[in-house]
Amino acid sequence: MRPQKKPAASEEPNRLDQIYYVAAKIFCDKGYDATSMSDIADAVGITKAGIYHYVKSKQDLLFAIMNFGMDRLETHVITPARAVADAEQRLRAIIRNHALLIISGSAPEGYSPLTVLNDEIAGLTPAHRRRVLQRKRVYLDLMRDTLRQLKSEGKLKEVDATVAAFSMFGMLLWLSRWYRPDGKLTGADVANEIEKIALGGLLRPQARLARN
Amino acid sequence: MRPQKKPAASEEPNRLDQIYYVAAKIFCDKGYDATSMSDIADAVGITKAGIYHYVKSKQDLLFAIMNFGMDRLETHVITPARAVADAEQRLRAIIRNHALLIISGSAPEGYSPLTVLNDEIAGLTPAHRRRVLQRKRVYLDLMRDTLRQLKSEGKLKEVDATVAAFSMFGMLLWLSRWYRPDGKLTGADVANEIEKIALGGLLRPQARLARN
Repeated sequence: MRPQKKPAASEEPNRLDQIYYVAAKIFCDKGYDATSMSDIADAVGITKAGIYHYVKSKQDLLFAIMNFGMDRLETHVITPARAVADAEQRLRAIIRNHALLIISGSAPEGYSPLTVLNDEIAGLTPAHRRRVLQRKRVYLDLMRDTLRQLKSEGKLKEVDATVAAFSMFGMLLWLSRWYRPDGKLTGADVANEIEKIALGGLLRPQARLARN
Repeated sequence: MRPQKKPAASEEPNRLDQIYYVAAKIFCDKGYDATSMSDIADAVGITKAGIYHYVKSKQDLLFAIMNFGMDRLETHVITPARAVADAEQRLRAIIRNHALLIISGSAPEGYSPLTVLNDEIAGLTPAHRRRVLQRKRVYLDLMRDTLRQLKSEGKLKEVDATVAAFSMFGMLLWLSRWYRPDGKLTGADVANEIEKIALGGLLRPQARLARN
C-alpha cells in the first residue's frame, strides 16, 4: 500500500495532498469521530509519528481537508464562473463544473474532501466552523445572485431564488453518494443529464427561444 | 429538561419515540460515534440504566432510529404514492409528501431520523446495513419506475430515469440541511417551490398541455 517513490523535491506537497485524500476517504467511510490518526497513518503508509510532521492534530487535519475541498471548488467552479458575464451561461458553467468536479474525482477517492466538507462540520472548532461557513456562503451567494440576475432578465421561471439555489446544491452534492465510475453512464453523460434537469427546472423555455 | 408526566398506559411507546427523536437529534449534531448513551439518557431525562430498559445498545438504537425513519417515509410517502394510478400525479405526490415530511418535522427535531438514515449508515452492523439498504431500494425503485412510466407515456423529457431519480432525492434530502421553520417562506411555500423546480426539470410542458 506504500505509494510509489517520487523525486524528493515534489514529495512534500504530494504527500500532504495524499494525506488529505486518504484521510477524507476514511472520514467518509468510518466517520470523523471513529477515525484515529493511526488509521490514517497506516493507510498512507507512514508511522504515526511521521503523520504529525504534516498535521498538528486530527481536528486541524479536518479543517485542512475542508479548505482543500473549498480550494478545489474555487479553482474549478467559482473562479471560472465569475469570468462568465451572461447569467444563463454562468449557471450552466456552475452546474456542469461542479458535477464534473465530483464525478472526475470519483476515481479513486477524489470527491471525498467535498463530502467531508458537507458532512463533518460538527467536528470543527467554533472558529474554524465560522471560517468554513463563510467560504460556503460565498458560493451560495454566487449561485443565488446568478439566479436573481436571470429573474431580472425574465429568464427564470416563477421560482424562489433561495429554494432554487439550495435545490441545485442538493442535486449536485448527492452525486457523490450515488455516482459510480463503473456504472452504465459515463461521467460526461451524468453531468449532461444533471445540467438538463437543473436548467429545465429553472429556466423558461420561452425566454430561451425568444432570445435565440 | 424532564418531559411532562403522561398517563402510565401511553408512557412506554411515547418514551420510546422520544428516545428516537432525541437520540437522532444528538447523532445529527455531534455525530453517531461521538455520542454516548449517557448523552442520550441525560437529554431524555432518564438514568443511563433506565435507557437500557428501552434499547439494548447504541448500535441497536441506531438501527431502530433508521427503521423508525423508514416507517415514517413509508406511511407518509410510499404508501400514499402507491395508491395513485396516474404516474404524473404519483410523482407529484412523492415529491410533495417527502418535502412536507422533512419540513413539518423540522420543529423541533422531527427530521433527524431521516437525516440519520442517510448520514450514519457506516455505524450499522453488516446485516442491519443490508436491511436498511433494502428498504431504501424499495423507495428508489418506486421513484424510478414512476419516471419510466412517464417516459413510456411520452411525458418525461429526454433525461435518464436513474439520474433523474437520484437528482430528486438530492433535492429533497438537502432540505433538512438548509430549511429553517423561522425563515421567510412557510413550509407549504417551500414544498410548492420544490415541486415546481422538480417537475419543471423532468416533465415536458407540451405533453402536459396536450393532455389537459
